[in-house]
Amino acid sequence: MARPITLFTGQWADLPFEEVARLAGEWGYDGLEIACWGDHLDPWRWDDDAYVQSRRDVLEKNGLGVWAISNHLKGQAVCDDPIDQRHRDILSDRVWGDGDPEGVRRRAAEEMQHTARLAAKLGVDTVVGFTGSSIWKYVAMFPPVSAEAVEAGYQDFADRWNPILDVFDEVGVRFAHEVHPSEIAYDYWTTVRTLEAIGHREAFGLNWDPSHMIWQDLDPVGFLWDFQDRIYHVDCKDTKKRMGNGRNGRLGSHLAWADPRRGWDFISTGHGDVPWEDAFRTLNTIGYQGPISVEWEDAGMDRLVGAPEALEFVRRLAFDAPEAAFDAAFSTKGDA
Amino acid sequence: MARPITLFTGQWADLPFEEVARLAGEWGYDGLEIACWGDHLDPWRWDDDAYVQSRRDVLEKNGLGVWAISNHLKGQAVCDDPIDQRHRDILSDRVWGDGDPEGVRRRAAEEMQHTARLAAKLGVDTVVGFTGSSIWKYVAMFPPVSAEAVEAGYQDFADRWNPILDVFDEVGVRFAHEVHPSEIAYDYWTTVRTLEAIGHREAFGLNWDPSHMIWQDLDPVGFLWDFQDRIYHVDCKDTKKRMGNGRNGRLGSHLAWADPRRGWDFISTGHGDVPWEDAFRTLNTIGYQGPISVEWEDAGMDRLVGAPEALEFVRRLAFDAPEAAFDAAFSTKGDA
Amino acid sequence: MARPITLFTGQWADLPFEEVARLAGEWGYDGLEIACWGDHLDPWRWDDDAYVQSRRDVLEKNGLGVWAISNHLKGQAVCDDPIDQRHRDILSDRVWGDGDPEGVRRRAAEEMQHTARLAAKLGVDTVVGFTGSSIWKYVAMFPPVSAEAVEAGYQDFADRWNPILDVFDEVGVRFAHEVHPSEIAYDYWTTVRTLEAIGHREAFGLNWDPSHMIWQDLDPVGFLWDFQDRIYHVDCKDTKKRMGNGRNGRLGSHLAWADPRRGWDFISTGHGDVPWEDAFRTLNTIGYQGPISVEWEDAGMDRLVGAPEALEFVRRLAFDAPEAAFDAAFSTKGDA
Amino acid sequence: MARPITLFTGQWADLPFEEVARLAGEWGYDGLEIACWGDHLDPWRWDDDAYVQSRRDVLEKNGLGVWAISNHLKGQAVCDDPIDQRHRDILSDRVWGDGDPEGVRRRAAEEMQHTARLAAKLGVDTVVGFTGSSIWKYVAMFPPVSAEAVEAGYQDFADRWNPILDVFDEVGVRFAHEVHPSEIAYDYWTTVRTLEAIGHREAFGLNWDPSHMIWQDLDPVGFLWDFQDRIYHVDCKDTKKRMGNGRNGRLGSHLAWADPRRGWDFISTGHGDVPWEDAFRTLNTIGYQGPISVEWEDAGMDRLVGAPEALEFVRRLAFDAPEAAFDAAFSTKGDA
Amino acid sequence: MARPITLFTGQWADLPFEEVARLAGEWGYDGLEIACWGDHLDPWRWDDDAYVQSRRDVLEKNGLGVWAISNHLKGQAVCDDPIDQRHRDILSDRVWGDGDPEGVRRRAAEEMQHTARLAAKLGVDTVVGFTGSSIWKYVAMFPPVSAEAVEAGYQDFADRWNPILDVFDEVGVRFAHEVHPSEIAYDYWTTVRTLEAIGHREAFGLNWDPSHMIWQDLDPVGFLWDFQDRIYHVDCKDTKKRMGNGRNGRLGSHLAWADPRRGWDFISTGHGDVPWEDAFRTLNTIGYQGPISVEWEDAGMDRLVGAPEALEFVRRLAFDAPEAAFDAAFSTKGDA
Amino acid sequence: MARPITLFTGQWADLPFEEVARLAGEWGYDGLEIACWGDHLDPWRWDDDAYVQSRRDVLEKNGLGVWAISNHLKGQAVCDDPIDQRHRDILSDRVWGDGDPEGVRRRAAEEMQHTARLAAKLGVDTVVGFTGSSIWKYVAMFPPVSAEAVEAGYQDFADRWNPILDVFDEVGVRFAHEVHPSEIAYDYWTTVRTLEAIGHREAFGLNWDPSHMIWQDLDPVGFLWDFQDRIYHVDCKDTKKRMGNGRNGRLGSHLAWADPRRGWDFISTGHGDVPWEDAFRTLNTIGYQGPISVEWEDAGMDRLVGAPEALEFVRRLAFDAPEAAFDAAFSTKGDA
Repeated sequence: MARPITLFTGQWADLPFEEVARLAGEWGYDGLEIACWGDHLDPWRWDDDAYVQSRRDVLEKNGLGVWAISNHLKGQAVCDDPIDQRHRDILSDRVWGDGDPEGVRRRAAEEMQHTARLAAKLGVDTVVGFTGSSIWKYVAMFPPVSAEAVEAGYQDFADRWNPILDVFDEVGVRFAHEVHPSEIAYDYWTTVRTLEAIGHREAFGLNWDPSHMIWQDLDPVGFLWDFQDRIYHVDCKDTKKRMGNGRNGRLGSHLAWADPRRGWDFISTGHGDVPWEDAFRTLNTIGYQGPISVEWEDAGMDRLVGAPEALEFVRRLAFDAPEAAFDAAFSTKGDA
Repeated sequence: MARPITLFTGQWADLPFEEVARLAGEWGYDGLEIACWGDHLDPWRWDDDAYVQSRRDVLEKNGLGVWAISNHLKGQAVCDDPIDQRHRDILSDRVWGDGDPEGVRRRAAEEMQHTARLAAKLGVDTVVGFTGSSIWKYVAMFPPVSAEAVEAGYQDFADRWNPILDVFDEVGVRFAHEVHPSEIAYDYWTTVRTLEAIGHREAFGLNWDPSHMIWQDLDPVGFLWDFQDRIYHVDCKDTKKRMGNGRNGRLGSHLAWADPRRGWDFISTGHGDVPWEDAFRTLNTIGYQGPISVEWEDAGMDRLVGAPEALEFVRRLAFDAPEAAFDAAFSTKGDA
Repeated sequence: MARPITLFTGQWADLPFEEVARLAGEWGYDGLEIACWGDHLDPWRWDDDAYVQSRRDVLEKNGLGVWAISNHLKGQAVCDDPIDQRHRDILSDRVWGDGDPEGVRRRAAEEMQHTARLAAKLGVDTVVGFTGSSIWKYVAMFPPVSAEAVEAGYQDFADRWNPILDVFDEVGVRFAHEVHPSEIAYDYWTTVRTLEAIGHREAFGLNWDPSHMIWQDLDPVGFLWDFQDRIYHVDCKDTKKRMGNGRNGRLGSHLAWADPRRGWDFISTGHGDVPWEDAFRTLNTIGYQGPISVEWEDAGMDRLVGAPEALEFVRRLAFDAPEAAFDAAFSTKGDA
Repeated sequence: MARPITLFTGQWADLPFEEVARLAGEWGYDGLEIACWGDHLDPWRWDDDAYVQSRRDVLEKNGLGVWAISNHLKGQAVCDDPIDQRHRDILSDRVWGDGDPEGVRRRAAEEMQHTARLAAKLGVDTVVGFTGSSIWKYVAMFPPVSAEAVEAGYQDFADRWNPILDVFDEVGVRFAHEVHPSEIAYDYWTTVRTLEAIGHREAFGLNWDPSHMIWQDLDPVGFLWDFQDRIYHVDCKDTKKRMGNGRNGRLGSHLAWADPRRGWDFISTGHGDVPWEDAFRTLNTIGYQGPISVEWEDAGMDRLVGAPEALEFVRRLAFDAPEAAFDAAFSTKGDA
Repeated sequence: MARPITLFTGQWADLPFEEVARLAGEWGYDGLEIACWGDHLDPWRWDDDAYVQSRRDVLEKNGLGVWAISNHLKGQAVCDDPIDQRHRDILSDRVWGDGDPEGVRRRAAEEMQHTARLAAKLGVDTVVGFTGSSIWKYVAMFPPVSAEAVEAGYQDFADRWNPILDVFDEVGVRFAHEVHPSEIAYDYWTTVRTLEAIGHREAFGLNWDPSHMIWQDLDPVGFLWDFQDRIYHVDCKDTKKRMGNGRNGRLGSHLAWADPRRGWDFISTGHGDVPWEDAFRTLNTIGYQGPISVEWEDAGMDRLVGAPEALEFVRRLAFDAPEAAFDAAFSTKGDA
Repeated sequence: MARPITLFTGQWADLPFEEVARLAGEWGYDGLEIACWGDHLDPWRWDDDAYVQSRRDVLEKNGLGVWAISNHLKGQAVCDDPIDQRHRDILSDRVWGDGDPEGVRRRAAEEMQHTARLAAKLGVDTVVGFTGSSIWKYVAMFPPVSAEAVEAGYQDFADRWNPILDVFDEVGVRFAHEVHPSEIAYDYWTTVRTLEAIGHREAFGLNWDPSHMIWQDLDPVGFLWDFQDRIYHVDCKDTKKRMGNGRNGRLGSHLAWADPRRGWDFISTGHGDVPWEDAFRTLNTIGYQGPISVEWEDAGMDRLVGAPEALEFVRRLAFDAPEAAFDAAFSTKGDA
């Protein structure tokens, strides 16, 4: 079998895990990238073998595998500043507690450590997620931001994540950060700088999700090549640019998803501007062995229609590279 | 005389006002857009006639006029949230006080009212500046931001600025907001929404500065047309896009100005991607009568070289529309 | 059921109405946008109940509905100047009469009034069509055209169409003008001006057909947003630009359709440059409730192949917006 | 001396010829492309030697030469249909007469014959102008236009112009048609067809004016190469495209010149999108020996400012090709 | 039946001819463009009727036809200079002999003559192939290359190929040269010059393969129009450009196929940048009657997957032009 | 003084060195990049102190300095294969000898060693030049080229250049290879590979000449950043792309310079598509301290006109970065 195609359950966490597993199985997905929210997966129960087995049972019953689990929401809270209502809305009571920012950050970090332990228990070597950032809010660079303030942000990230990554190392799991606005690494050069901040330790790699690169005019395929030894996971979310009229702006105008005045929008995988085939071919070339995970998000389409369609799209383009026999074919002839 | 060309003194506030006036006069500028920081102009002294006269004297001595004054830095603090070290660095002790955010905002608002009064005393009908924003930090829309949270931001702006604008109305001065990241209105659709929030009251208009539109892929000339009745002032700052390699990102990577890895940068007026001539022609068409003000900012060039060069550039392209006699010339012939 | 997908019968009027209905029914179309030429529909028989019922019977027999009827050809003659052989070729003897231009225009206007009456009898609230224009021929603006001459053209349009629209109002039907070269409104700004000319009366709206916008470099999706309260009907005709060689011109060189030297050509829906999916999504957003009508025209393809293929194409992309349940899915999680 | 740079007087015909000559001489133009309207030049006086000498005297007095004369306005009337108020506005009483279209066309043709004779008398071998067209009005191809109708238009052109060109041949003068909307040849393929219609007779060539090609997306430099043996004259008019907002259309929306909503506009030479340097270099390569004539037209700029600036622009870029000595320089070295 | 769709066997010559025929037949190809290497076809046996019949038998058994045969590899050796190891790898011992360059060229030319004879025997009127070139190696023009040296290359081509083409004329077969880097004609202007070199003799035409035009920024559809009387065969190979990051170069960097750092790559037909539909429509227009041959080459995909997929792709887009009945449909109606 | 601006004498070697020095001095150049051909500089006389002094005297007399010398032509012969008439035309008799290829290569290598010695004698630390390449001729990769053959080419380069570079190291001079078609390193990835082949030894760096990158669609500014520690010299040659018509090809069609059918051409510095200002600013950022050398080459312009114009162009844009005082200016204010 080629690389498995999984469905990321994050956008389905309003449904019970069993239901999502049933749907994904029926549609033909090979497995799930399970989110650690809703009732899908609870990192604080990593040491509860029966719980872990129950998750495995659901997968098995639906013919699904798991190669990575995800905990974007808690990772986000590790470095974020300010911590505010937006975090209250996405965190469990356990992590939010009394809402004191430093306490929230500390408990979120603890959950990330548990997430690594849970991954190990599940036999999974990759945790996908976010890091948060104390300096993202300075992105417009006005009021003026000193170089020292920026540096302090990278240091804050290293200080908070190194102890988390120590646990990852202990249990033999890797963290795959999703390069994304709001995070410490959100584009090419911030990724370079983030990897430096953490001394290029192997426990920290990347979840390649091209959707966030498209509207920043980054080349997602060149990104795969340059960071080839850090591509630990792949999420297939797509983005459509809609900036043809000089009024729709690159920054989205604080408008809701699916508003046609946004300069770009998330869209069902394959409906957008990501050069998927080039990307899948490059994944073949760099020897990426992990799952291809569909992260489905499109505020203008029914997810029950979109998710199986996306699977079909990915299955068609994420083909394997040819076998060695290929070379033999050329030995006695030439291009024409 | 055609529209006057002025120099904005904001980026020169490390120099004494007299020195900046001397330089601008020597270079041939028609006047100054005077910043309310450094020693250039102090709004809290609006009622001190001798002070006001002293400012006029400096201008007169250097053959300069004034058609607008600016107070971006205090306007920024009116709505911003959080208020932090960045604000400490740009605010006077008087406004900063003990640094309690709400107090800072209140004192900044008070200074904006004084700025209107000072403008009136100076015989100037326009104050240029920023509004700040309590929701700019949500620009990436993750963690998820509710529509209500966005609406609350616009309401906060209206609540804080309406009392300021009341003073503007009292003294017959207009506020020209500069559409800019970090502000309540930073692109086309947020400008539409901001004007709605404030009931389209005439006291509130726009300072057209295209530099911030270029990297957001907005059409700065179409913007002039659509908001033609709200163009109260014009600032000529330029921006150069440098995104040809798939690595330099649209968001600037938290890199310092002049770093070649930034996807765009501010640049000496006329060296960038702003379609200046189209813009100046459209200003003619919509009947804009105010000054053309050079806001010079380029971290890769000496300002003493750049400022006079920018004046020459603007002077050459910001020509008047032809006289009525023009029509007569066509009455007996045709295009060919 | 989602919005119905209909076939416009205008390009099939060489076939008997029964035959077109049979084909459309077999291909799976939901209904027809019936043209008032050939034997498809005769507005002068609007008061003949048996005739009207016979048309309904044909539809019913083939499982088809009708939500709009069309009379482009007679609408064209209402304002056109000159009236010449081209009109002779597309008008019935009844309207052409002795060919005296003013008489032709008057009879064409009368038929447009009957068309409204017929629509009402058929239970249809929309008539699609053209307006003609007395000033289209001045498009190149040489020999020089005075502003007065242009204004007179808009006035001529208003004078001739207001009496027609009065009948539309009487019978509760709306006219949907197709923005198109040769007409009074053929692009964005002429549409703005046309709506002004007629006082924005509700009886007059638009048939959105993007094919004519593509080669004029207009943004058909932004058009939907800006004129959202006037989108009364949607025609899906597609256009392919072929200007890659510096010789094929934007104006078509008076060459016949399908000549590869034309700079653009009409093409089977989905084979061209219209951003269909963006458009259909925007139709969802603005709440357009009417039919999506395939206007099939492609001089390089067999229509019997193209028409069913176009239906499949539109059916796949013109999906509904997601249900309200969608929002619930996001309440406990975030984007990732 | 390199090729002379002349000023086309057509857009200055509201001024007396002596005044235009004085201005052009003072600005440094080498000569004039004299228009046959206003009081500049009267073809009906071709046989009046004193008159012809008086024109020469004016030129000589101002240090000017003449290499071509122009009669666009009367050429326009030779084939146009309809003949209407627009023609009344640009024709002399002598040609307009009673306004009967066929009479107007006949008298216009007669004036074109006289124009050839006048050119010969002036010692000039080129007449620049328009042809008019009976089929331009069909450019949108709706109502449908048959191939026969289009062919009839080319035949009408040949029938009307062959007798004119016979006189050109008699007196040894060539006609340089300006490829332009409203004319029989307005783009690449219509030029090919027009030359065929007239049997490629040498008396009929082209006035290369790139301004009309720019907004049709034609390659004006490739045009020079392909029609190199028919480039009889060069007019430097410039065009600026302004279509960045999806609303400004390619066809100009019947808006007046200088309206910023037009998708393109004529503009002072060197301010637009014509690749002038490439063009001038290609003129060198194809051995064009005639004048470079500035046709200045810009509704947003004062012509007294623009005309001398345009001369300077052209003078700087229309440099000669290097001398033969150049080759010697390379004989002993290589590129590096 | 429409034009047949064939599979070029050149990239399958490692497999026995019978096996390739079996595969192509099963996939539904209409026939083969048989390569004269591997065991597919041996031109030196042109006079062996049993051999020729055996080839026909294999085709017939698999329901396949043949409309053209190919001999790129020997054609390449006719003009190439230097002759080196690359040729040794693609030539038979019979042609290579002792490897003396002039002998290799002579024997390759002889095989091309036999290929014409074999084609005639097979009842095929077209031989597809390459010419080789003695001057391709000068493409960078450094060290400097004189015009005489370039001319000598075209003359060498004519001298070597005219005797070959004489045999083609004798047996009534045409040679279709594939415009391709490494050959005498590799782009538009070299094709013009090559046809001149050979006096435009009819025996020499072109195999239109757009893959080599895409990365040279040539317009493959315009090419069809301009050389319409010389399009003797069509090969469908596709190319994908991957130059979005400023590092991947146009010339391929001497990197192997499928390396993502190449600026372009050959790719399965339909996955690349060739405007196939425009091309197939233009083939209809110019009346091309020959086969459409899939030349499948993609180092990143399994050929057993790609070849049938490519057939489906071509079958869908290479549709026939509509029948004459089409015109009738328009006689009573108009565009809308 | 800022970085010196020099003139490369390679394209002026048909003139005596004294004459070139006189011209450059009069035009205001700061110095020369002296070519080792013509009578400009003879590396075989490196040990002749009087000769070396005589060269210095010429420079001094004309107020010129020297910071680099060049020997492209002999460097070219070190690796090239084949060695043919093109080399005969650019080599001295001493190097060409009997024309036996291996002897030519050996003597060329010897001259490169002498060039290093001569540079040291002249007090210059940089030699600019070419490497030649045994595999450039395989650039089209057909007939098929094995990976081994490509690798052998890089090895051949290393084998031949390491001994040359040993002499460079001995005398403390660096070689600056010009990335250029025909050479071992001609684009981004071949430069990466070339530096690997030679173990990244410091003696081997790059002469940044963007002209060769433009038509390969490489980003010359990103190149400066990525290879910043190897930018040893800068040559300002410019290139204009002319590919707008689908016929002019990327590879130049074996046409002579200045032929308008070429897809690109070398052009006077500042007339082409190189983003010079971005490049000069990036040179400031990376701390490049060497000369900016104008390599003037334009077959369509007189060099006596072009060379001083190019100096003015470079002088205007290659400005210094601002002084440290700049930071002070921002300490009390903000961007606006």
